Amino acid sequence: MRALLVVAHGSRRQASNDEVGELAGVLAARVAGRYHYVKEAFLEMAEPDIASGLQACIDAGAKQIDVLPYFLSAGRHVVTDVPEDVAKVATKYPDIEISILPYVGQVAGMVDLLAEICSPPSAN
Amino acid sequence: MRALLVVAHGSRRQASNDEVGELAGVLAARVAGRYHYVKEAFLEMAEPDIASGLQACIDAGAKQIDVLPYFLSAGRHVVTDVPEDVAKVATKYPDIEISILPYVGQVAGMVDLLAEICSPPSAN
Repeated sequence: MRALLVVAHGSRRQASNDEVGELAGVLAARVAGRYHYVKEAFLEMAEPDIASGLQACIDAGAKQIDVLPYFLSAGRHVVTDVPEDVAKVATKYPDIEISILPYVGQVAGMVDLLAEICSPPSAN
Repeated sequence: MRALLVVAHGSRRQASNDEVGELAGVLAARVAGRYHYVKEAFLEMAEPDIASGLQACIDAGAKQIDVLPYFLSAGRHVVTDVPEDVAKVATKYPDIEISILPYVGQVAGMVDLLAEICSPPSAN
């Protein structure tokens, strides 16, 4: 059983964290053929944290977990913080295969998305 | 003359800020029909800041500037900080039309981008 954990930074604004949960919900429907369980987690300032999110995936029966860093650039959070939090859980569960996917800003489609935002009719 | 300012958070890791500059460069080529000048700027921890980025657009001859918040969710930075920094410059230049576009995480195409990341062959 494969699970997907969407890891966002987390915000003091609950509406911002709710957005991530909603996105994970829409994504879950889109990737249902590949992932049986999709959950969101937050690096800081919001719950669940990464350890709790991974635990939820494991409790749901996941044997493989893909972590999707919902971050735009390879700052400290992507390079160090997320991998460290993931590694702590991975050490506890050697039988669970946990992979970290490319972060969102790293993929080629990002420039298409930006071009879409600043082209009519979506541009002001 | 219309300019586009891509505003990212900014990182202590220079490689992360360089990524934003490279993305702005690729985007510039993609939106060249609409924008004569494309520049990146950073909310904090990196240069140029938003005021300097907007000034560069104005110095390049821009009469209309679209600000693209390169942020994933509507946290404090998107809701308060970026608009405040933009407003300070807008007040100084009443003849320049400055608009803030939707932030990256807000657009419908984001879920497609995420689905692409976690689907083979790009997964793992």
